[in-house]
Amino acid sequence: MTELDLNILGCGSATSTLRHLPSCQVLNVRGHLMMIDCGEGAQLELRRMKLKFSRLNNIFISHLHGDHCFGLPGLLSTMSLQGKGGTVTVHIFKEGAEQFGKMLDFFCRERSFELKFNIIGTKKAVIYEDDAITVSTFPLTHRVPCVGFLFREKPKLRHIDAQACQAHNVPPYFMNSLRQGKDFVTPSRVIIPNEKLTTEADASISYAYCSDTKYSKRVINAVEGVDWIYHEATYGDENERNAVKRYHSTARQAARVAREAGVKRLILGHYSNRYNDETILLRQAQEEFADTILGNEGMTIDLNRV
Amino acid sequence: MTELDLNILGCGSATSTLRHLPSCQVLNVRGHLMMIDCGEGAQLELRRMKLKFSRLNNIFISHLHGDHCFGLPGLLSTMSLQGKGGTVTVHIFKEGAEQFGKMLDFFCRERSFELKFNIIGTKKAVIYEDDAITVSTFPLTHRVPCVGFLFREKPKLRHIDAQACQAHNVPPYFMNSLRQGKDFVTPSRVIIPNEKLTTEADASISYAYCSDTKYSKRVINAVEGVDWIYHEATYGDENERNAVKRYHSTARQAARVAREAGVKRLILGHYSNRYNDETILLRQAQEEFADTILGNEGMTIDLNRV
Repeated sequence: MTELDLNILGCGSATSTLRHLPSCQVLNVRGHLMMIDCGEGAQLELRRMKLKFSRLNNIFISHLHGDHCFGLPGLLSTMSLQGKGGTVTVHIFKEGAEQFGKMLDFFCRERSFELKFNIIGTKKAVIYEDDAITVSTFPLTHRVPCVGFLFREKPKLRHIDAQACQAHNVPPYFMNSLRQGKDFVTPSRVIIPNEKLTTEADASISYAYCSDTKYSKRVINAVEGVDWIYHEATYGDENERNAVKRYHSTARQAARVAREAGVKRLILGHYSNRYNDETILLRQAQEEFADTILGNEGMTIDLNRV
Repeated sequence: MTELDLNILGCGSATSTLRHLPSCQVLNVRGHLMMIDCGEGAQLELRRMKLKFSRLNNIFISHLHGDHCFGLPGLLSTMSLQGKGGTVTVHIFKEGAEQFGKMLDFFCRERSFELKFNIIGTKKAVIYEDDAITVSTFPLTHRVPCVGFLFREKPKLRHIDAQACQAHNVPPYFMNSLRQGKDFVTPSRVIIPNEKLTTEADASISYAYCSDTKYSKRVINAVEGVDWIYHEATYGDENERNAVKRYHSTARQAARVAREAGVKRLILGHYSNRYNDETILLRQAQEEFADTILGNEGMTIDLNRV
């Protein structure tokens, strides 16, 4: 198990096709699964990608269009049938909590887990935090209220330099403090600075998910300097007008966001069903920003390998 | 195009797997599509089977368990995105109409077609009728209110005997009356009996869909003498207790229903996810009723070939 994997379960746009499924991703944070959007069929794709329902406790819904949330009732019902315990939190706008809350209370009243809705708004806000990661929202510009999600790993522990520790007789119980950056004080009160006993922690990775949005300066500001972004690329250059009209982006605009925000890597997705081959979208994007890849169903990306 | 095709889009039970999808069938009645149950993913399977959204105007939901109806919001939203016109009628229990009505009014308020809910009950009743077919409900025995659907073709038109018509100088305008069984009266007032000018109409086919039910005498009575039945076969013999407890059937019980009702052909489905190979279910069923086949996703059955 790696530290931070992104799994793409669906990266098509509203009309699902035999080539692409509606939006759904799963971020695997050291074995804890976080689902980002939940299009119809998400539960089946979880199975296909061998991601365990039992490890899924947080679901983040970017906005209330069906292709981003119609998989929720089926997924949650199946999780309950399988006897999943603990709590499942759906981070979602108020109206979504009402709609799906009612539906699940009717179709899946006796649940094996506690279902919580965390009501999110459209402003920048930290909406989730644990030992490993913080998740915050930032506003996108779509036809309905819509947010992106920024996943940011917390600072990691430093690595022990075993030889140096042995040379200074650091006792085992102090290793955790060392990893947290503390200096070691010997029994004879000599201070050994931390950096003599440890090496740099791994970098903390950040990932921003920009589901449905038109090209927007505020998106650029929000994702400035992150390592990875997923940005919708519904259309190619020839459909830029459609993109503007329908509050979507072209692949080129997605790449401009990546470049202007100074991110390291860009993943495209949310392809219109008019494209039978997204290579053209990739080419247009790469003219603006070379480190771009096409998202695809079944793909797992190790985000540590920036 | 044949006259009456049954397409199986999903024949798994509640927990969808990579082998079987939740319940969904499409009956093609001379080009008019009628969907029977609508599990999650139905819209994608329609595409996979090349069945046209534009020809789908009636959806029949047997009961309000998620694996029989969670595909509705996505399917109807996509049909609207594709600009389908006319009316789409969902035949469903009252609580289902309320749940999905609210959901669609929120997620898909501007619809390209008129959405109607035809509220059905659990008793025997004709719930739909057109020139070609009548559809009636009959009660099943499940944990929640649940009905089967009986599709019965109307009597068909007789076949013209072209040679005989020529011999009696029957004018073209009278052919339709002939096909309906009327006698021909010559200009000189001689009555030519219909059977001298036509041959027998094709047989009218009947098909009964029994989704979720335990073995039940009232099901046998309801499907007596029909040509084809689909009957759930969630379990094998070794799980008969589970079948009783959960108001489901074994494959053998399904076959007994077929035999005792004197039907011609039986299709099995709604397999529990514990079976990786349903051959054992088929064998047990065939011990009771030889003309049994295993339903499977992607299967199209010409019901005229009884």
